[in-house]
Amino acid sequence: MSEAKELDAYLAETAERRLESYKELLRIPSISGLSEHAPDCRRAADWLAADMLAAGIERVEVSETRGHPVVYGDWLHALGAPTMLVYGHYDVQPVDPLELWQRPPFEPFVKDGRMLGRGAADDKGQVHAHVRAAEALLATRGRLPVNVRYLFEGEEESGSPNLESWLLANVGRLAADVVVISDTGFFQGNRPAITLSVRGNMYAQIDVTGPDVDLHSGSYGGAVENTANALARILSELKDRDGIVRIAGFYDEVTPLSAADRRAFAELPFDPDALLAETGVPALAGETGYTVSERRGSRPTLDVNGLWGGFQGERSKTIIPAHAHAKVSCRLVADQDPHVIFGRLRDHVLAVAPPGVRVEVSLIDTALPMSTPADHPAVGAAARAVSAAFGADPLYIHGGGSIPVCAMVREALGAPVVLMGFANPDDNAHAPNESMVLANWERGIRAICCLFDELAATSGLAPPAARA
Amino acid sequence: MSEAKELDAYLAETAERRLESYKELLRIPSISGLSEHAPDCRRAADWLAADMLAAGIERVEVSETRGHPVVYGDWLHALGAPTMLVYGHYDVQPVDPLELWQRPPFEPFVKDGRMLGRGAADDKGQVHAHVRAAEALLATRGRLPVNVRYLFEGEEESGSPNLESWLLANVGRLAADVVVISDTGFFQGNRPAITLSVRGNMYAQIDVTGPDVDLHSGSYGGAVENTANALARILSELKDRDGIVRIAGFYDEVTPLSAADRRAFAELPFDPDALLAETGVPALAGETGYTVSERRGSRPTLDVNGLWGGFQGERSKTIIPAHAHAKVSCRLVADQDPHVIFGRLRDHVLAVAPPGVRVEVSLIDTALPMSTPADHPAVGAAARAVSAAFGADPLYIHGGGSIPVCAMVREALGAPVVLMGFANPDDNAHAPNESMVLANWERGIRAICCLFDELAATSGLAPPAARA
Repeated sequence: MSEAKELDAYLAETAERRLESYKELLRIPSISGLSEHAPDCRRAADWLAADMLAAGIERVEVSETRGHPVVYGDWLHALGAPTMLVYGHYDVQPVDPLELWQRPPFEPFVKDGRMLGRGAADDKGQVHAHVRAAEALLATRGRLPVNVRYLFEGEEESGSPNLESWLLANVGRLAADVVVISDTGFFQGNRPAITLSVRGNMYAQIDVTGPDVDLHSGSYGGAVENTANALARILSELKDRDGIVRIAGFYDEVTPLSAADRRAFAELPFDPDALLAETGVPALAGETGYTVSERRGSRPTLDVNGLWGGFQGERSKTIIPAHAHAKVSCRLVADQDPHVIFGRLRDHVLAVAPPGVRVEVSLIDTALPMSTPADHPAVGAAARAVSAAFGADPLYIHGGGSIPVCAMVREALGAPVVLMGFANPDDNAHAPNESMVLANWERGIRAICCLFDELAATSGLAPPAARA
Repeated sequence: MSEAKELDAYLAETAERRLESYKELLRIPSISGLSEHAPDCRRAADWLAADMLAAGIERVEVSETRGHPVVYGDWLHALGAPTMLVYGHYDVQPVDPLELWQRPPFEPFVKDGRMLGRGAADDKGQVHAHVRAAEALLATRGRLPVNVRYLFEGEEESGSPNLESWLLANVGRLAADVVVISDTGFFQGNRPAITLSVRGNMYAQIDVTGPDVDLHSGSYGGAVENTANALARILSELKDRDGIVRIAGFYDEVTPLSAADRRAFAELPFDPDALLAETGVPALAGETGYTVSERRGSRPTLDVNGLWGGFQGERSKTIIPAHAHAKVSCRLVADQDPHVIFGRLRDHVLAVAPPGVRVEVSLIDTALPMSTPADHPAVGAAARAVSAAFGADPLYIHGGGSIPVCAMVREALGAPVVLMGFANPDDNAHAPNESMVLANWERGIRAICCLFDELAATSGLAPPAARA
């Protein structure tokens, strides 16, 4: 029997056990953001470590951080072959509003070809798939075609506050030629896809203060600057009617789209009507001169995430608010550095602020953008693996959101990151009734198996020896 | 003994009793806005009616409305002489925060030449002064030099919801040549003043809606319009950097200031440093081309009274808000009609709103502006009365706020309104430790007595006979 047939047979035989094991992991309510679930996070880490060991992964360790532990394991016997580092996370999002779930979020069940339950897709299902792939290869071949390290953290849904320091403390034992992350998804309509980039983020707060207390708008209206009017003016000066950010230097580190880039975006089967229906907005909008796909995937933008000040109740209260505030964030691309962009935002805000108010701008959060070229050999290997498992060439897509871990891992390890995720776009990650299409999960396991072989056959990925 | 000396002697003799009676009225917690105080409002109305009867005022009546009653009374035996209608209110503002009061708000006491207690100035003290003036004239002369009607309502601090219908139902018995309202105050530094105008008001709400739910600002940022950005743009288009309202037609019914008007404003001893210190703002602001006094007194303006939308918590939440809102109000002058101005605001907002959002504009509240020319004979009479009682010519000032009752009474009765109020500008009306300078109160009673004589001597006020 060929290696491929043996693998198929093994996966077929173990299908039921695999599904049960998947459910077992989903039953652990490892919500990293709620302190009362800290023991559950540890339980999930322990469960995963035991599962990895049982699968044949070595040097498995539940490694402490200042928060929930990191689970590490490796298999490094493919001498001369490249090393892949797989990153995932075993923690999950909170589950409220609970009343919207068809069944309790930690009582997973299968319905209409999907596994339903918190973490089914994000990210337990995909972590579990990686362990199953290694298990299947080791069971049928006794070895893996490339070296592999696993790094599963427990705080991704809480912003990975302790991952960077753990990475820096352990960088000596994490050497890898490529990082594979399965925490993304497919394109509209569940079409196979590989994500080439994620946008970065710069999140700031603008505080406008004026009079010591709210003033009577009759007695003082027209004589003192109104903080809410001033805030509106400041915000309106950040981005113009054409969706172009007006902050000086904002686009300096943005790489212009090449003709090939634009062709690739144009070829994505994007359906604007579907987006209108999905969001309920009367019309799409955005930066003049770019398509919707380009705007979401390759262009930076600026959004007011919230604003408040003065009277917010029913009816009327005639005041000039003593203060007004806004949360403002920018999605970043290419070489835009969130700290540099914050400085430019702050300078711009202070320059356009009217003289009758005081304005402060403070930085709240940052994430670096991350991208991997479509022609990187590891991307090609992943594409062939997906194609083999799903029977269709993957689309190359760009994530509009930010996955801070991507840039963090790339910076710490100096290795390219391939985002090969199998979630379906309507999987309700972070929402009630999270699900994973089981066909995606099963084929995903096969795609990961293929990836091992494809990476082994790919030239241009330096073997560990060459890196020493 | 001359009439004047007899009056002085009477007021000196009755000083102690008068102060005790003032305190009695202040002890009744007639907060019109709190339903649990409805019996107290009625008690205040009954107290006032008994007090008026005892003073010699006739046809005193506690007249029902759908809310708290109106107290009416008159004295109409000055055949051939004009008729003055005195408006005031016996209800008071709420008292929270209670802990900031030196003593309980309804336990009035005298300190440093002031009466302290809720209602001391606004408006019980001034209502009480009017009754005392009539009482003194009737006691010393047996008659009044002009006819007088009293109309004291109990819902002014709640927006006078039932006054207009009461006025319309009783207009047949309210004929008057001049309306006198003592519910305003003096100029900075307690300098005697007569208020020639109050601004009107138009209060609206702008609701911007976009996606059905908050969207992830990463996945959708740059592709759908952001409601908070859109709101900021709309608001910034309402008034420019120079403080000029950009709504088409906004200034159409505003009378340009004459050279005499500007001289009068320039002569007001306004102190900008005092306003900076009082408010704590870093700089004054307002419409280019006008002085601060002109801006507050004679120019319309536009203020955002509150705004809200999206995430307002600590740290960050990366969303495109599903909706964003603002309260916007305009202070109005001259012939600006709040309903017309609302229509223009709405048209302007809808014209500048970006296409990716839905916008609604709704009217919440209106008040007509009101003004009386400085050269109106009744204003001259009031000025001479104030001058005689306070030993200084009053300043002619303009109230920035709105007193809806002014226009309501003027429209219903077709008579000019003279705003002759005696509150000191630092009297903490609507705030803890409300007070009335007792010298203002005592001299105010004398000024009201003088006003009777001055009106009797003023030609150009039609006697009631001529009005029939």
